[in-house]
Amino acid sequence: MKLSHLVGERLKETPSGATLKSHILMLRAGYIKQVSAGIFSMLPPAQRVSEKVQKIIREEMDALGGQEVLFPVVMPRELWELSGRYNSIQEELLRFKDRTGHDMLLGMTHEEAAVHMVMNTVKSHEQLPCMIYQIQTKYRDEARPRGGLIRVKEFLMKDAYSFHTSQEDLDVYYNKVFDAYNRIYKRIGLKNFISVKSDNGIMGGKVADEFMLVTDNGEDRLVLCDKCGYKANMEVASGVKTASSTEIGGEIEEVFTGNAKTIDEVCHFLEISPENTVKAVCYVTDEDKLVVAFLRGTYDVNEKKLMKICRSNIKPADTDKFGLVAGNIGCVNLTVPEDAIVVYDTSIVNMENFVTGANKEDYHLKNVSASRDLKDVVFNDIALVQEGDCCVNCGERLTLTRGIEIGNIFQLGTKYTKTMGMKVSMPDGSMMEPIMGCYGIGVGRAIASIVEEKGDEKGIVWPMTVAPWHVHFCPLRLDDENVSAVSDELYKRMLDAGIEVLYDDRQVSAGVKLTDSELMGMPIRVVISPKTMAQGVAEVTMRESGETNFIPLSDLLSELKAIIDDEISEIEK
Amino acid sequence: MKLSHLVGERLKETPSGATLKSHILMLRAGYIKQVSAGIFSMLPPAQRVSEKVQKIIREEMDALGGQEVLFPVVMPRELWELSGRYNSIQEELLRFKDRTGHDMLLGMTHEEAAVHMVMNTVKSHEQLPCMIYQIQTKYRDEARPRGGLIRVKEFLMKDAYSFHTSQEDLDVYYNKVFDAYNRIYKRIGLKNFISVKSDNGIMGGKVADEFMLVTDNGEDRLVLCDKCGYKANMEVASGVKTASSTEIGGEIEEVFTGNAKTIDEVCHFLEISPENTVKAVCYVTDEDKLVVAFLRGTYDVNEKKLMKICRSNIKPADTDKFGLVAGNIGCVNLTVPEDAIVVYDTSIVNMENFVTGANKEDYHLKNVSASRDLKDVVFNDIALVQEGDCCVNCGERLTLTRGIEIGNIFQLGTKYTKTMGMKVSMPDGSMMEPIMGCYGIGVGRAIASIVEEKGDEKGIVWPMTVAPWHVHFCPLRLDDENVSAVSDELYKRMLDAGIEVLYDDRQVSAGVKLTDSELMGMPIRVVISPKTMAQGVAEVTMRESGETNFIPLSDLLSELKAIIDDEISEIEK
Repeated sequence: MKLSHLVGERLKETPSGATLKSHILMLRAGYIKQVSAGIFSMLPPAQRVSEKVQKIIREEMDALGGQEVLFPVVMPRELWELSGRYNSIQEELLRFKDRTGHDMLLGMTHEEAAVHMVMNTVKSHEQLPCMIYQIQTKYRDEARPRGGLIRVKEFLMKDAYSFHTSQEDLDVYYNKVFDAYNRIYKRIGLKNFISVKSDNGIMGGKVADEFMLVTDNGEDRLVLCDKCGYKANMEVASGVKTASSTEIGGEIEEVFTGNAKTIDEVCHFLEISPENTVKAVCYVTDEDKLVVAFLRGTYDVNEKKLMKICRSNIKPADTDKFGLVAGNIGCVNLTVPEDAIVVYDTSIVNMENFVTGANKEDYHLKNVSASRDLKDVVFNDIALVQEGDCCVNCGERLTLTRGIEIGNIFQLGTKYTKTMGMKVSMPDGSMMEPIMGCYGIGVGRAIASIVEEKGDEKGIVWPMTVAPWHVHFCPLRLDDENVSAVSDELYKRMLDAGIEVLYDDRQVSAGVKLTDSELMGMPIRVVISPKTMAQGVAEVTMRESGETNFIPLSDLLSELKAIIDDEISEIEK
Repeated sequence: MKLSHLVGERLKETPSGATLKSHILMLRAGYIKQVSAGIFSMLPPAQRVSEKVQKIIREEMDALGGQEVLFPVVMPRELWELSGRYNSIQEELLRFKDRTGHDMLLGMTHEEAAVHMVMNTVKSHEQLPCMIYQIQTKYRDEARPRGGLIRVKEFLMKDAYSFHTSQEDLDVYYNKVFDAYNRIYKRIGLKNFISVKSDNGIMGGKVADEFMLVTDNGEDRLVLCDKCGYKANMEVASGVKTASSTEIGGEIEEVFTGNAKTIDEVCHFLEISPENTVKAVCYVTDEDKLVVAFLRGTYDVNEKKLMKICRSNIKPADTDKFGLVAGNIGCVNLTVPEDAIVVYDTSIVNMENFVTGANKEDYHLKNVSASRDLKDVVFNDIALVQEGDCCVNCGERLTLTRGIEIGNIFQLGTKYTKTMGMKVSMPDGSMMEPIMGCYGIGVGRAIASIVEEKGDEKGIVWPMTVAPWHVHFCPLRLDDENVSAVSDELYKRMLDAGIEVLYDDRQVSAGVKLTDSELMGMPIRVVISPKTMAQGVAEVTMRESGETNFIPLSDLLSELKAIIDDEISEIEK
């Protein structure tokens, strides 16, 4: 490809509104262009990366016996009503009416379409397990798209669905997919990725793993144990909370705290540490039942965990409505409606001599003791893990970090086959609803993650396996006829040799050429100039290491091929 | 692939509602499954064909210097308002609101997105010509989807957009694309396709060609001259109309025709031939102006042509509203509003001694003469070509046939670059709006067209270049351990040799296996059985010709590879 005709431009400045590295670099280097909030066009170099990433994904899915299919982007309401998702999913599911007034939607995943395809066409246990997958455009009406390709509305995704006659069979297959996912990330050149146990949220089912690129810029919070290897998304992570106060104080005493309502204010007023307080956080369920969660003052509620205990979505409560005294709610002598759910976090266990609200305007209680005053209470883990908590498996201090989700795999159980009525015949003549797994990777987000992990202050750094072109060929002084002739000839020879090359055939300064090549991120840069030609060499620089070698022009093609092959083998080994 | 695990089923019966050959066969053979009217899932074999067709399209686009990109499926109203298409396109453009109430739409083509991508990123004439293309899902809210993949709402399409600094440059490029399209259809195995001049309708611009699969089942009517090669879609075709009456009759005479209103009724009443009548067809424009079209009684109005003359869309008129006498409207002494448009078709030229309405209830005029009574009239060609008309180029009788549109290419002019404000700098420092071409192929329709052209009473017949698998391997009597062992071994060896093979590993009757293989349409069927094994041979049958050869098992792999390579070369030569 000649750079002079490549569609796209290179920008010096950070485009306004972009803050994430991959977003900035992909805009600046001419890979993506925003069409609407969270909706991007992919320019030619990005599409080339995408094709290579897709090829690797296909190879791994095919190796698992996956059968590639294509489901529709637009689906009818009826299909999604079978599974219940038409009503259960909120606004991120885009619903609309077609010209005949029929309710339709834009697919954000394709469980229903997958079951629709296999039901009646897969009828016997002998045909299972089977896995179908597609690589296709999805739409999720994201409330706050951001970060370029990291959180978008429209995205290209590989989604796969497997069907099994037993949980054991699913477990075996699930683990194979797990391994394939690790291979995919390795093959596209990522290094710093991990898998964590996750919440399977609205997808139903039990077991779920997320693959995460570990990066400070990630939106997801991760909890890791460096000793035993425990890894979990914050949403599902548990930790052992260290003890706070341990000695029982005196009798419970009511103290005036006036306008001090928040933990900070109360601690300041009473000159105590938040460690020695128990706070209340109030919610209501979908059925408008009150939920009061008590935790040690230093902890925050993990709403996902709390929802599981309440078996409902929850949202912040209007405490007045339930007769509670906001800012003075406490875990002793609390009066709540009969159907209210009161939950005590495990951070309160063993707490002695703490302060909590007096359930009375302007007053708190001090000297409260969990062992004495909360005798009949059942404690649940409803807190977000925090710095200082220890591993539930091995007791080691947990590490908190951040990550970008780059893929997820779920065991779906029979949620979809049961609701949609898909059955296969078993050897004994009985019928069973197959057990499903589903497996997703966002292609665009995977690409952005590569930029996120490997990009540096100069620009993008592509791994050889997915680079749009292997070589960025920058002849300097193309106004020199000799350079120009040799460059054209070299370009042609590289193409003939099967080397993917981006040829900067513009008559611009060396500065512009070299800066552009660093920004665009091809793994190898080849420079020739009157000076190198006088010596019969080309300057070959590796983008990632910055290492430069001068290679005789006569050996250039074979050297380049060797470097390309070596790098690909190194990544894929 | 083992057939036992292939997702999809084979059906004996024609599914209800399917009438078109490709629709019936693709449903029966397990290639497609309907999700909603005009919306299909592609099962694994169809997806394999699709990938091969896409690969051929990509190769041809890349050979033209095309740069593959990806535009969004969902676009914002604002982008389409720039070109005016947001308002000008009717209900087939699906519009909806996203969760924030923003007006969005589903792309049916991507001219606006293409200009959006290149504007500001392609700034100089030096970067032109350039062509960008994508292969991506489109949605057109089709009022009457039908015929399986032939007329759908959602479809995969390759759409390409080129940009030029002069009409000459576009002409040269357009012709190259024209040639590439011919190569694409040839390479995917079509034989009976042609290109015809077409109407570029809502796309704007001037030159347009459609590629058509010639078939009686086509929705489009085509006009061909076997002598000089004239080819046109009925929508734009012209013909030389043969003369009807030639002798001037007597004076115009008013005759009572009573309830005879239609041409048939009047002819029956007066005992004359429709050849000797002139009828009126009435429309109104968008601005509610009356349009009266006069034609020889045997011709029908070509509304596309009439619209061009009226420079407006037209719809049938309520003649009463304009004071006309329906059924008695004639071309002599017609009284119409001042702003009415009265158009006379060229079929009336030279007509003498004809009957037309008297513009008076219950009466017609006879003995009307074009040369005498329509002296000052300008004649326009506004009729649909019909059987018997002759070629405007060479005078030969025209042939009328039908076709399925399998692709179209347009010269768009500056419609989009002008309205969207895209300019490039020219050598003299001036700025110009690039001239565009656009080029589309529907992937699904191309696949269905192959089935339409080559399918027979037994099923689908795939050309080797796009077949899901080259070989359908049908071992008979797999209950025989010897057959089973040899089959498994042969399957493995075929895979190792790079032969794409569908292995019917089911223990079902020979009848079922052979019928299924004919229905599914792989180019080569290989049968082994205890009988062939005893002779050390395999039975190799070509699906298209039905030719069978018995090939020694020792030569089988090399023979198969030779057949595959030969067939591919034969198609692609």
